[in-house]
Amino acid sequence: MAESWVNYAERIGSDLHLELSGPGSKRAALIGALRDAVRSGRLAPGTRLPPYRSLAADLGVARNTVADAYAELVAEGWLTARQGSGTRVAERAGTLHPAVPPKAPAPPSPAPPPRTRAPRRGRPTRHDLRQGTPDASAFPRSAWLASYRRALHQAPNEVFGPGDPAGRPELRAALATYLARARGVRTEPNRIVICSGFAHALRLLFGNGNGGGSGTASGNKSRSSRGRLPRGPLAVEAYGLPFHRELLAAEGVRTVPLPLDEHGARVDRLTRERAVLLTPAHQFPTGGPLHAERRAAVVDWARARGAVVLEDDYDGEFRYDRKPVGALQSLDPERVVLIGSVSKSLSPAVRLGWMVLPERYVGDVLAAKGEREAWASVLDQLALADLIVSGSYDRHVRRMRQRYRGRRDRLVAALAERAPHVEVSGVAAGLHAVLRLPPGTESSAVRAAVRQGVTLDGLAEFRHPDTDMPAHDGLVVGYATPPEHAYEAALEALCGALASSGTRVS
Amino acid sequence: MAESWVNYAERIGSDLHLELSGPGSKRAALIGALRDAVRSGRLAPGTRLPPYRSLAADLGVARNTVADAYAELVAEGWLTARQGSGTRVAERAGTLHPAVPPKAPAPPSPAPPPRTRAPRRGRPTRHDLRQGTPDASAFPRSAWLASYRRALHQAPNEVFGPGDPAGRPELRAALATYLARARGVRTEPNRIVICSGFAHALRLLFGNGNGGGSGTASGNKSRSSRGRLPRGPLAVEAYGLPFHRELLAAEGVRTVPLPLDEHGARVDRLTRERAVLLTPAHQFPTGGPLHAERRAAVVDWARARGAVVLEDDYDGEFRYDRKPVGALQSLDPERVVLIGSVSKSLSPAVRLGWMVLPERYVGDVLAAKGEREAWASVLDQLALADLIVSGSYDRHVRRMRQRYRGRRDRLVAALAERAPHVEVSGVAAGLHAVLRLPPGTESSAVRAAVRQGVTLDGLAEFRHPDTDMPAHDGLVVGYATPPEHAYEAALEALCGALASSGTRVS
Repeated sequence: MAESWVNYAERIGSDLHLELSGPGSKRAALIGALRDAVRSGRLAPGTRLPPYRSLAADLGVARNTVADAYAELVAEGWLTARQGSGTRVAERAGTLHPAVPPKAPAPPSPAPPPRTRAPRRGRPTRHDLRQGTPDASAFPRSAWLASYRRALHQAPNEVFGPGDPAGRPELRAALATYLARARGVRTEPNRIVICSGFAHALRLLFGNGNGGGSGTASGNKSRSSRGRLPRGPLAVEAYGLPFHRELLAAEGVRTVPLPLDEHGARVDRLTRERAVLLTPAHQFPTGGPLHAERRAAVVDWARARGAVVLEDDYDGEFRYDRKPVGALQSLDPERVVLIGSVSKSLSPAVRLGWMVLPERYVGDVLAAKGEREAWASVLDQLALADLIVSGSYDRHVRRMRQRYRGRRDRLVAALAERAPHVEVSGVAAGLHAVLRLPPGTESSAVRAAVRQGVTLDGLAEFRHPDTDMPAHDGLVVGYATPPEHAYEAALEALCGALASSGTRVS
Repeated sequence: MAESWVNYAERIGSDLHLELSGPGSKRAALIGALRDAVRSGRLAPGTRLPPYRSLAADLGVARNTVADAYAELVAEGWLTARQGSGTRVAERAGTLHPAVPPKAPAPPSPAPPPRTRAPRRGRPTRHDLRQGTPDASAFPRSAWLASYRRALHQAPNEVFGPGDPAGRPELRAALATYLARARGVRTEPNRIVICSGFAHALRLLFGNGNGGGSGTASGNKSRSSRGRLPRGPLAVEAYGLPFHRELLAAEGVRTVPLPLDEHGARVDRLTRERAVLLTPAHQFPTGGPLHAERRAAVVDWARARGAVVLEDDYDGEFRYDRKPVGALQSLDPERVVLIGSVSKSLSPAVRLGWMVLPERYVGDVLAAKGEREAWASVLDQLALADLIVSGSYDRHVRRMRQRYRGRRDRLVAALAERAPHVEVSGVAAGLHAVLRLPPGTESSAVRAAVRQGVTLDGLAEFRHPDTDMPAHDGLVVGYATPPEHAYEAALEALCGALASSGTRVS
């Protein structure tokens, strides 16, 4: 054992030295170096890693830094940790496809935008606690305008001609670097395709002529079957956005629910499906991360079955605890499609999202998008690229993470005082919390909230109609939605509703 | 006869006085007043209109003003003019559905964006004369940025939350006024739906769940058949953009070609179809307007058959002759869907378009678009609204119309000198011209152009594969595409190709 970690330390010493003396955190640098070592095979599957204190001493970093790095890599599935046998390189880690040269490591930042739920129009609401929207009053107008102005001034004339359907190269390059740093994503700009958001990405993957069931002969005649998403039913989590299921149904894609337990989606139930849509970093809406073993297992399944995993990285930038979860995509960039957008990190008014694709799907997704950019505003694309490269995007995300974390803390504290019977879950990340309720009390709690002028959804709204897993009662609280000045009153009204409702276990 | 026009002048005297003393042109005001009189039934079908000189004297305007107004209304189908019987109110004009209160009349401005043809990537081109793109170097960066800045500063916070799928109210209001003024469109903001461009509009009209053939049972289960576009084959012009036909085919819509003659599409050939897609103002790509009688006939057909006309108003803002052609939509707002975009007037980089809808289709188009705005950049929408309301849009269009007109004149002059055997057609409007060639010489002319470094399309590229109309040989020259400084060289190369090719009739 000693030899393997000594060798390891020696072999990657120069990398580490380089990284550890750079501007980033030592912890992030160590994670990156370890990840690269596993990925490249320099640390073979099954290899036991040195104890924290040994590696810390050797590298001149704090012991906690090493402990944190190991925990992150366990969560991501690169390492395994078992009581009594220490930390080892995961069995399948060594076979990872070295598709892309390793990028900067992932300081496990905040998590990006949760998908959006459609507002119920025409229903007046004094306190809007629906999930799915960031605080609209916090849009960084000045920073965005500064980036937009710079982008517009610097744009070459060809920007105003027909656009490349892959998206502007400036944005794809900025995203490749950013996603590597913030989410551990392994990719290259030419595997990124820009789109209008998550729903657009689903349509590009499953719509006409691209693997969904609705293409007609005439529509498909010019396409081969090479490189398309596998046909057939799509496995999804038993709780998720109904909007996504409806969109898929409209494209002719049947969704099959996977039950959830305390470790996330039961990926062991995957059978004949050829694709699965997951929210690994922060299950939507229930809130937990997918367990490390299941992360590994679902990638193994995809490899064995020639299947694909769609990773909905909806709020990956907003993580509040010490257990950041990098993108599942990094486990196998050839088996995972990562989809993200700015709808939670900036605003759904900026209609921009991205798909990080396995190489074999790039051509068909571009074909589905059209021969020219027909969707995403090219000027907004340039502005977002500038926002990211200039550091304004990071600053905004940090500021919002702090704000949302404060709101979460206030929510938890207020409920502990006013409605102690309510269990709050799923709050380690994201823009929403789930309030677990005693069985059979959800609808009365929603009604009580409505009487207090609070609009929110019960968990039942998100349940797949075909699932046979036991129903959970709960409320999904989008604590990011109200403007700052209105949050206190919304919280007050929510607590009033819960204190007065029949949800108290008597 | 005298009585009817005296009555007419009396009855609408106050309107006219009001209009004629307003800020707009007298000609435009007279057109509007006459159009309203016909629309409202104050001038009955068959009524003979007063001679130019009588009406001119009565109203205190120049005789040419009256002549122009009559000509415009004949072109739009409100009036008919026959040798020997004077100008009369068209027979079906009186039955026009008075759907919307009349808006400001249409000073028959320039024409908006022609649809885009995809560039052939990877093919080097020194002189790009492909149709479909405005001069990318002419984008009004300063004006756009000024509007964007104002819009961003003035935006209420809700702008940054989930968006209305109909589009921003500011933009819909600006477009309703602008399209009435520039194109004679009769509508209200709540009948306008914003989209990402023409292709998006076609998808919304014909895609999954909205009348196309590709919807599945599961996708459609929540929709009734009320208000949808009629199902079945879609009639299209025998020459048109292949991209549109392919898009429709992918949505499961079969297109049936209508032959063209010197008066435009043979709408008398419409039989069992329930919808027709036309380019009435400027047939794409051959270049003529749809004859006034056919404009009337196609609306009559739509009424009789419960059918719908889709008006692709792709370059309505760029008209160079004295015979402006208002939107067909004004003949019956309940039977015509008008579709436009800024792709030709500003840039395809601004991904914004609009649909002006009959009332009964609004709900389904919005349902197809989704419960929130998932497509068009909301900030760009606000910027465009400001650009229109501030007058910057009109100024830009005027400037570009002048520039493109100059280019057209140079093209015509150069060809007259260097390649007099080539007949230039379709040049009264738009961003492209058609060079008619002797039969059998098109492909050699395209090859000769390629040898000179010129990229352009032959007419054959646009021909519907199922049409039985005789083929025409010709080149489609997009004279707006090159930047100003490169136009002379492109023209030179084109003339060189034509002079040297085998297209000269010997």
